[in-house]
Amino acid sequence: LSRQKRPLFGAIDLGGTKLLSVIATPDGEILARDRRPSQTQEGLEAILARMAGSLDSAAEEAGVQPSQLGAVGVASAGAINFDRGIVSEAPQLPGWQDVPLRDLLQEQLQLPVLLDNDANAAGFGELTFGAGRGSRHLIYLTISTGIGGGIIIDGQLYRGKSGAAAELGHIVIDMGGPVCPCGARGCLEAIASGTAMVWRAQEALEQGRSPLLAQLAAEEPLTAELIARAARQGDEACTEIYRVAAFALGNALASYVSIFDPNAIVLGGGIMNSSELIFEPARRTMEGMVRRLPLQGLRVLKGELGDESGVLGMVALLRRDRTFGG
Amino acid sequence: LSRQKRPLFGAIDLGGTKLLSVIATPDGEILARDRRPSQTQEGLEAILARMAGSLDSAAEEAGVQPSQLGAVGVASAGAINFDRGIVSEAPQLPGWQDVPLRDLLQEQLQLPVLLDNDANAAGFGELTFGAGRGSRHLIYLTISTGIGGGIIIDGQLYRGKSGAAAELGHIVIDMGGPVCPCGARGCLEAIASGTAMVWRAQEALEQGRSPLLAQLAAEEPLTAELIARAARQGDEACTEIYRVAAFALGNALASYVSIFDPNAIVLGGGIMNSSELIFEPARRTMEGMVRRLPLQGLRVLKGELGDESGVLGMVALLRRDRTFGG
Repeated sequence: LSRQKRPLFGAIDLGGTKLLSVIATPDGEILARDRRPSQTQEGLEAILARMAGSLDSAAEEAGVQPSQLGAVGVASAGAINFDRGIVSEAPQLPGWQDVPLRDLLQEQLQLPVLLDNDANAAGFGELTFGAGRGSRHLIYLTISTGIGGGIIIDGQLYRGKSGAAAELGHIVIDMGGPVCPCGARGCLEAIASGTAMVWRAQEALEQGRSPLLAQLAAEEPLTAELIARAARQGDEACTEIYRVAAFALGNALASYVSIFDPNAIVLGGGIMNSSELIFEPARRTMEGMVRRLPLQGLRVLKGELGDESGVLGMVALLRRDRTFGG
Repeated sequence: LSRQKRPLFGAIDLGGTKLLSVIATPDGEILARDRRPSQTQEGLEAILARMAGSLDSAAEEAGVQPSQLGAVGVASAGAINFDRGIVSEAPQLPGWQDVPLRDLLQEQLQLPVLLDNDANAAGFGELTFGAGRGSRHLIYLTISTGIGGGIIIDGQLYRGKSGAAAELGHIVIDMGGPVCPCGARGCLEAIASGTAMVWRAQEALEQGRSPLLAQLAAEEPLTAELIARAARQGDEACTEIYRVAAFALGNALASYVSIFDPNAIVLGGGIMNSSELIFEPARRTMEGMVRRLPLQGLRVLKGELGDESGVLGMVALLRRDRTFGG
């Protein structure tokens, strides 16, 4: 009986490279996981089948029929029109424009589906089950290859008029500065994302300014993590790349604080693995910039949920919504 | 009887140089005005007496006793702790730090007082009675000597955890750039405010780069308006000052749109008198930077209420609050 009142949920995080499906209780306990590459280059039909296969596999591990799930939450990369359940554009999902992912997946799975932006979901996950528990106003930022954001006001995700709000990676902090994948210039993402740091590192390599990184990159792919390793070993160009990224991030944090006067800022994403190179100096930069009043009582925190923040956020969104038996 | 049910309100806008008091109906009809210099250098006691005198004068003109007013709304420059009714800091009000203006004025006037930040109030005024009527999510920006902001979400002012939110003039758009009066670097206010433009013009004058402005400034004080006049007459340095300010403003607007996906942005303040030099090019810059979805249906508007937006906003705030008989 209690199982019927509080059904299990499925949740899927669809990224540009990775797909994660889970089966979870409404309280955020994950019963089973399936991880696989998202293979986005194979096109929409294949991705839909892949998502269904991944969810089936997690359900099998959890010992439930997919049809028993109360609903499935999908956290997707890209700009999401939340009300209409549409991925309106997504650089990470080649060729996707105005894709009605919610309805297509509802058809495929024969289950109710809720679709949200992955960073929104991750922020809501950290608010509900992670570092930001109990915060009234929370700003969430995830820094990996790109930079995404989530805005929580009075405990609710803020979505804006078209569901496209909280593109916190695209605030301009260096007007006229480096070109961003979004087409504009000087966005935070164009300076402090993993992708931007790799660009700067490639320039350094081409100019022969980073012999240590050249050595490391001969054996492994050039990533923000590899740049961090070179920085820790004293490479000057790589240290400078992180210094600039941290300064940019600190300036962006100062802007968020001046705008939102939030209770908490939570930072997640792969780059937080190098937090002493970026999180700590960015926080100090921000603290030196903003006014007294919004600094009082502000918590600046590392996310606690890692790459499960998105699926857990979808679970949290589903359980709040009576439509889905939450 | 209806007068008793819907009392008249007093409202005062306290700026660094000017004081405006009005008597108004809850529907935003202004029955009388009193304008005088705020003389902030005379100190707190004198300012309180001056505000009371100004309100009395407006009340007399409207033919009402101040004691008949339902309440008085005060829009003040500076960072306001809304819940506690305190001016926590205000560069425009020399020496003010943690001044309990609401309670002091309540004592002085023997009337209930509501205190808010002047830009918050102006934004709420434009939402209720001005250019932004009917907007769900509205960003208000006022550009004069400084740059202030107001954030309206779901028809309500957003204040943050300490009432210090919406400092939209202090988002960083040029990291490491010019020093701002707030102490940080690269804030919008350090580039696009009237004060910042005057600084740039003074540099141009010192370097002999603006003979036309030198001529004009010999007869009149150097203001953003005077720089605009020189720009209109073809002065290159002054044209460049406005070009940079408009580009900075456009980048800031792009950031607000990426963050808030708002229904409307309303721009007010003295600088809008030179709107063809700053408003139009800034809007075009923004439109060239942001994504498709948030641009759809976005209205970018000039404020309609001029320097009465603050007092009208306080009237709108008072009438929503049952405490004040609204």
